[in-house]
Amino acid sequence: MNPTLEIFSQGEEVVTGQTVDTNAAWLSEHVVAMGFTVTRHTAVGDKLDDLVTLLREISVRADCCICTGGLGPTSDDLTAEAVAKAFDLPLEFDDVAFEQIKRFFMLRNRSMPESNRKQAMFPKGAERIDNAWGTAPGFSLQVGRCWFAFVPGVPFEMRHLFSESIQTTLASRFLLRPGKLITIKTLGIGESAIQERISAIEIPPQVQLGFRASPDDVQTKLLFPHDYPETAVAALASKVAEELGDSVFAIDGFGRASGDLVFVIDQLMTVGGHTLAVVETASQGLLAAKCIGLPWLLETRYEQSLERLRQKLAVTVNGNDLIATAQAVAGAIKKTGAADFVLVQLYAGDNKTFHDKDQSIILYNTLLTGDGFHQTTHSVAGPIKRKQNQAALLALDLLRRYLQHKEL
Amino acid sequence: MNPTLEIFSQGEEVVTGQTVDTNAAWLSEHVVAMGFTVTRHTAVGDKLDDLVTLLREISVRADCCICTGGLGPTSDDLTAEAVAKAFDLPLEFDDVAFEQIKRFFMLRNRSMPESNRKQAMFPKGAERIDNAWGTAPGFSLQVGRCWFAFVPGVPFEMRHLFSESIQTTLASRFLLRPGKLITIKTLGIGESAIQERISAIEIPPQVQLGFRASPDDVQTKLLFPHDYPETAVAALASKVAEELGDSVFAIDGFGRASGDLVFVIDQLMTVGGHTLAVVETASQGLLAAKCIGLPWLLETRYEQSLERLRQKLAVTVNGNDLIATAQAVAGAIKKTGAADFVLVQLYAGDNKTFHDKDQSIILYNTLLTGDGFHQTTHSVAGPIKRKQNQAALLALDLLRRYLQHKEL
Repeated sequence: MNPTLEIFSQGEEVVTGQTVDTNAAWLSEHVVAMGFTVTRHTAVGDKLDDLVTLLREISVRADCCICTGGLGPTSDDLTAEAVAKAFDLPLEFDDVAFEQIKRFFMLRNRSMPESNRKQAMFPKGAERIDNAWGTAPGFSLQVGRCWFAFVPGVPFEMRHLFSESIQTTLASRFLLRPGKLITIKTLGIGESAIQERISAIEIPPQVQLGFRASPDDVQTKLLFPHDYPETAVAALASKVAEELGDSVFAIDGFGRASGDLVFVIDQLMTVGGHTLAVVETASQGLLAAKCIGLPWLLETRYEQSLERLRQKLAVTVNGNDLIATAQAVAGAIKKTGAADFVLVQLYAGDNKTFHDKDQSIILYNTLLTGDGFHQTTHSVAGPIKRKQNQAALLALDLLRRYLQHKEL
Repeated sequence: MNPTLEIFSQGEEVVTGQTVDTNAAWLSEHVVAMGFTVTRHTAVGDKLDDLVTLLREISVRADCCICTGGLGPTSDDLTAEAVAKAFDLPLEFDDVAFEQIKRFFMLRNRSMPESNRKQAMFPKGAERIDNAWGTAPGFSLQVGRCWFAFVPGVPFEMRHLFSESIQTTLASRFLLRPGKLITIKTLGIGESAIQERISAIEIPPQVQLGFRASPDDVQTKLLFPHDYPETAVAALASKVAEELGDSVFAIDGFGRASGDLVFVIDQLMTVGGHTLAVVETASQGLLAAKCIGLPWLLETRYEQSLERLRQKLAVTVNGNDLIATAQAVAGAIKKTGAADFVLVQLYAGDNKTFHDKDQSIILYNTLLTGDGFHQTTHSVAGPIKRKQNQAALLALDLLRRYLQHKEL
């Protein structure tokens, strides 16, 4: 069993929603990678009783707790006081901490306000965590079952204190056996369809299976215990990936292509020495925008009206045949441009359909390469911004499939 | 005393830090505005016992709880099961919900996987919350002291369900005395510059002042108690807005332009009956992409190379004078196109500068309208994606300033 850890975030700005709590996610990601099981995140405001209650709860429930915020000099910074009250410990003045705080102000040619004196008061038995990045030192304390670390809520101070001090302490205080996480990333297939496709695969009970759908991909996650044999990890991950077939664009944690779709394409285009021209319609600039800074994208244009696009490029194919039109557009661009690949995205659906979240547009993607035309067709529904994003991703994904497999 | 409310976020991806929990902040902001006191945020993973424990805790501690996540079709979506177990309620099949789920798939020409059937199972006594935005309906349930609402974790579904259903129910079930929140949204000025500019204004202790910086704006927030006099609210908000001047593009909660930048521009363009052509460079499609679906945007093009842009449009002005070049480009577009406004974005900075987060590019925006040329120039540093986003926003902001003030 991994040791359990809770994240405790303190501050009115968090519970009132003025601040998105990025600290909790950052800390969790780091401690999970170390081998902790994170059981809870809790945020409470700057109220002494709420803090006391929560500290007591955690002290009997978790092996470790990292608490952010409430170490500042103002009256709503109550952490030390709450810890003292929760565990019946007197507050003691720490000379070294006080010298550090005074020095912080001195180095910045500022005089120390009297209120900062309180930042040198710690509950009896606490160990100071020096903070070279701000005025507030952190502290740590073992209470019953739980080892608490208290750090400032300012993200960059918190991150420095974690990386430079807490991480080492955790590694020495706990017996940690990090698991192995494999993330299979797909595009063009939904979460429930994935679940159905892999339902025949037997997932051993020690392996945790999870899913995450975001606007840019669907991720299937396999978390293996630390002592799970390497070959069995590889076998299961391969089996799942195989079931998902060509929809898989990357697998993180498996020594294969990893990262997001654009990153995967960038690697493949760079290795292959290819260049690209793009014509987009439904995504209205978003396809090009996703490729910002990539030197192999030579030429990009988008056009809201298919009619105007045909006029501009003198394409005479019947505009109702979108596959033939896309091929003609690609051919015209190829002739005048320098890129060796041309990617064309067209779609069927009028303006009303495009705006209506309950109606679908049909996307026609054509890729022209040295060995001819490659096609995909997709139906996409949802709010207009979802259609736009899917249109950009699915066109790029045609390029990815070609590059990864050189056949479709 | 305000009724208390807790936010409960469910999902392995949250506690393991794979996802930053933006739902909690979004919901908190909205319920605080309605008059609730948010006492806690808690996140737990997809473990039945953890969910059951937390549900029971909250049911005796809060007046209301909004719970996100765990309503999907897969085996790790455990909300309904956890509620049933926590409060000893049988799960019942809801015909109407099942029809809605089937219809969702039918409209998208997809067959419904068997696993989605479970999304129509609710604990006895629950009221369904219809979801036109995804497959998972939500549900609500009173347990002891606490009224629970369960909604999907997908942010846009959650937001729709909150705005279209839960908000109304909350307003009718609870006696709420909302404070008055005013949010002043700015672009092109940083958080510390804002703090400095308004430092001379005396903020009464009952008024809460907060700031929030996002990629798309910086928000200055003033939260007034419910019984604060209207005239005093208006006076203080106006004073703060005045100090921030033209950087303010919207003020939410003040009967003036509100919403995001593109929304504000859309209103103004529509009212004025104007049309626009855009040429973008540094933002590489992102400016157009942000305007997806807006009918007054007639023509858009982007070009990575200034040289090619000059060639294509036969602009002969010296390319080193970017203001003159932008004006010539705008003039050329105006002559050939149908739009009455032309917005041109150029930038100075080589490829290396663009990629280097520690170096700045200089943005030159030109807007050509019936009464001539309007210019802004900005220096933008940071990672390439930040430069891209700022380039798109700052060009659009020139249009906004013109439309709001018809002078610069």
